[in-house]
Amino acid sequence: MALANGPSQTIVTLDLEGVLIPEVWIAVAETTGIEGLLRTTRDEPDYDVLMQYRLDLLAEHGLGLSKIQEVIATLAPMPGAREFLDALRAQTQVIILSDTFQQFATPFMRQLGWPTIMCHQLLVTDDTIVGYELRQQDQKRKAVEAFQSLNFSILAAGDSYNDTTMLGAASTGFLFRSPDNVIAEFPQFRSFTDYDDLLAAFVAEL
Amino acid sequence: MALANGPSQTIVTLDLEGVLIPEVWIAVAETTGIEGLLRTTRDEPDYDVLMQYRLDLLAEHGLGLSKIQEVIATLAPMPGAREFLDALRAQTQVIILSDTFQQFATPFMRQLGWPTIMCHQLLVTDDTIVGYELRQQDQKRKAVEAFQSLNFSILAAGDSYNDTTMLGAASTGFLFRSPDNVIAEFPQFRSFTDYDDLLAAFVAEL
Repeated sequence: MALANGPSQTIVTLDLEGVLIPEVWIAVAETTGIEGLLRTTRDEPDYDVLMQYRLDLLAEHGLGLSKIQEVIATLAPMPGAREFLDALRAQTQVIILSDTFQQFATPFMRQLGWPTIMCHQLLVTDDTIVGYELRQQDQKRKAVEAFQSLNFSILAAGDSYNDTTMLGAASTGFLFRSPDNVIAEFPQFRSFTDYDDLLAAFVAEL
Repeated sequence: MALANGPSQTIVTLDLEGVLIPEVWIAVAETTGIEGLLRTTRDEPDYDVLMQYRLDLLAEHGLGLSKIQEVIATLAPMPGAREFLDALRAQTQVIILSDTFQQFATPFMRQLGWPTIMCHQLLVTDDTIVGYELRQQDQKRKAVEAFQSLNFSILAAGDSYNDTTMLGAASTGFLFRSPDNVIAEFPQFRSFTDYDDLLAAFVAEL
């Protein structure tokens, strides 16, 4: 039986917002002009409070899911993201691990050629976003470990704090277009700002 | 914390050969005229012996990996497969679980729009296929269980014996274009032959 001794096939796990697409809440805030949607966990560290505040704002402005998805459909992935993703998918397997919601991701996934994504979901009743549901805590790290249990070697890239357990669990983790404070705090992860450089760094590890 | 109580997001796992693309060895046999490549595990139940026989035949005919990939690139997915896959990916996540080899799958994945695939790999030196490596035994079932550990509900479809542990581990498993003996032996799995019917059956379970 020609069974692999150790992992020799690879999956690349990628963060979504900040790496392939803009930050969704900020983009929706800018497109709709609802300034309150610019608040982030830096302004309100309690995520549940922040999310309820966002959902209340949407309801207040009569923005149901279909309207939000229309707004999101006018937004584009970052320039070069699709080409980067297609080039990477021609070389290895890619799975996006994101803390966004399925319903927000879908319009971007269509533009990115339907890559596989694991994220969370909004709870929707009659087009009104009534709540949200996190699929699993620390889901990015757990996904990396699950793929490793399937005898894959994992390479990863992300931009933010919520990516660092994923980057740490991977064989090799890269930062991409990270804020300076994240780059300074995690010197163990090589940092890139250009898709071609990130692609070359991944390919060198295959 | 709005944490999901149980799985409410879904991944569909699909077999590849017989479901989305033709049987690769048979197609290569027909395209190259090498009749020996028509042998299957029905003729030679020892998979290692069968694979060594196939690799010897390829070497004998001077067929390196690049030549085989050229042959495979002339083959197309089954009519309607791409449309089925795109429609399914617009509704949920899809991961292909196949016992083929990465190098054989890639030309088809390009034509199918780069869906994520988990499979095995050939060992190649200077374009000669010198061997093969199975990533993991019973990999389809283990992948389903790994995705379940990430709090996904799994739906699955396949055509053959090597799919039945995957179908059994999933919440719902379907047979697609299976031989009559497989349909007869596994009456617990609903059986389909048409992509539209299979798509509707998946969507009804989301």
